[in-house]
Amino acid sequence: MAERNFRELLENQWEQDKFLCVGLDSDFEKVPEAARPPAGGGVGETIVSFNRAIIDATKDLVCAFKPNSAFYESHGDEGWKALRETIQYINEVAPDVPVILDAKRGDIANTNAAYTASTFDHLRADAVTVQPYLGGEPLAPFFARKDKGVIVLCHTSNPGAGEIQNLMVEGKLLYKVIAHLAATKWNDNGNCCVMVGATYPQELSEVREIVGDMPILTAGIGVQDGDLKKTVQAGKDRRGRGFIINASRSVIFASNGKDFAEVARKKATELHGAITNAL
Amino acid sequence: MAERNFRELLENQWEQDKFLCVGLDSDFEKVPEAARPPAGGGVGETIVSFNRAIIDATKDLVCAFKPNSAFYESHGDEGWKALRETIQYINEVAPDVPVILDAKRGDIANTNAAYTASTFDHLRADAVTVQPYLGGEPLAPFFARKDKGVIVLCHTSNPGAGEIQNLMVEGKLLYKVIAHLAATKWNDNGNCCVMVGATYPQELSEVREIVGDMPILTAGIGVQDGDLKKTVQAGKDRRGRGFIINASRSVIFASNGKDFAEVARKKATELHGAITNAL
Repeated sequence: MAERNFRELLENQWEQDKFLCVGLDSDFEKVPEAARPPAGGGVGETIVSFNRAIIDATKDLVCAFKPNSAFYESHGDEGWKALRETIQYINEVAPDVPVILDAKRGDIANTNAAYTASTFDHLRADAVTVQPYLGGEPLAPFFARKDKGVIVLCHTSNPGAGEIQNLMVEGKLLYKVIAHLAATKWNDNGNCCVMVGATYPQELSEVREIVGDMPILTAGIGVQDGDLKKTVQAGKDRRGRGFIINASRSVIFASNGKDFAEVARKKATELHGAITNAL
Repeated sequence: MAERNFRELLENQWEQDKFLCVGLDSDFEKVPEAARPPAGGGVGETIVSFNRAIIDATKDLVCAFKPNSAFYESHGDEGWKALRETIQYINEVAPDVPVILDAKRGDIANTNAAYTASTFDHLRADAVTVQPYLGGEPLAPFFARKDKGVIVLCHTSNPGAGEIQNLMVEGKLLYKVIAHLAATKWNDNGNCCVMVGATYPQELSEVREIVGDMPILTAGIGVQDGDLKKTVQAGKDRRGRGFIINASRSVIFASNGKDFAEVARKKATELHGAITNAL
């Protein structure tokens, strides 16, 4: 069997007009009582049980799933096991849906090689988010994995993102310098992507100008209040695709009751509709 | 019992002229055959067994231990358990030695809160390394943990560090902008520290100028070839302390034979001596 290719999986989803990514930020404290496994079970089992229900309820509506590593790591080895089992479950029930591990990793090259083992080989994610601060050189072990997506943080969704990212570097904003590097020097293998917060539609549209048809992951609609219509208009490429719109808490924790999966599906359906309408 | 305080633990070590940090970058592939537990055992058990021997052999020579998360994560839940048990062991046999988790984390505030749970509460590290690219605002959950050290990447040790970190921001190099923010705006709780590669002694001395007596973690002597004497001269504060010099591979993998712990101790002793001589 050929190795799964992130870009191909994604293009296949875009063909079907799917652009929504559901973020599995499965904070245990927020998991509804009703999501607990019938026989009880610990933190890890509860998270997996919750995720399975969310995955089942939304898998035909999404172009990707994106678990954020932090919400699993906070429960240690048990959480890490839950993360692995969650990705494994997605691969089983929705083999055509790529998994983006939102881990925002970044270290020197020798250490990044260990991170590729963790993210791609052990956890079996199709793509990972990475930090640009150490430059492109230490990201080589990530880029060398040609079938995997390497999503470089460019302009993040948080309110204080501009403190560093909007610094003016020789007449150019830093996040634009990063976008340019990601689209050129860092993209020898064609597997580099960028991440831009949906809370910054103007910056998103400027990044789109710079990166051409490169995939852009955008996060921050929903709880973080990004404007969906603006995001779609700013984020799409010349073909009217090329973007991944992530919603996490606003979908997965939309209801705290027994109907949590059903309501998550309803929210995902609304978002899916709103995105395709905005195209 | 009062909570352990990173800065106090560190000052106490500096009082005793200890500045060396041993980096537990315990890459399983490089662990000597002789370090395997007598009864056999899996990857995680082997790593813990190796670490215990290294810790026992060097704990009276160091001001800190610094496991790098990547080399544990690459073995999944088993690796994560090994990381937790390694820190637990340090806390047991060397309770006066602080543990720096080199994880280089950085996300939005809501997610960073989960990372504090993982690094400080679950793994029980005394300090963690963090990324500056998202700005100071999302680092608030880290900084809020006043007893913990929050070590911001400033100028890293890798050859390509300058690609981003040496960009000129309104007449000032980016890593100096970060150093200044870390020493002022980001340091309301007095628990911010910075990390500068020993491979860049000039930059290290410039960062020292900017941050005053703030602790500096410096990595990259040994395998990465930083010059120890220059590092000490550039890194020390006005009191002749304030720095942590990390060596990882050059100590822990100094011998591949049965004598691996003994040789690690010999290397650590040499480095300890060379550092105090260079003061």
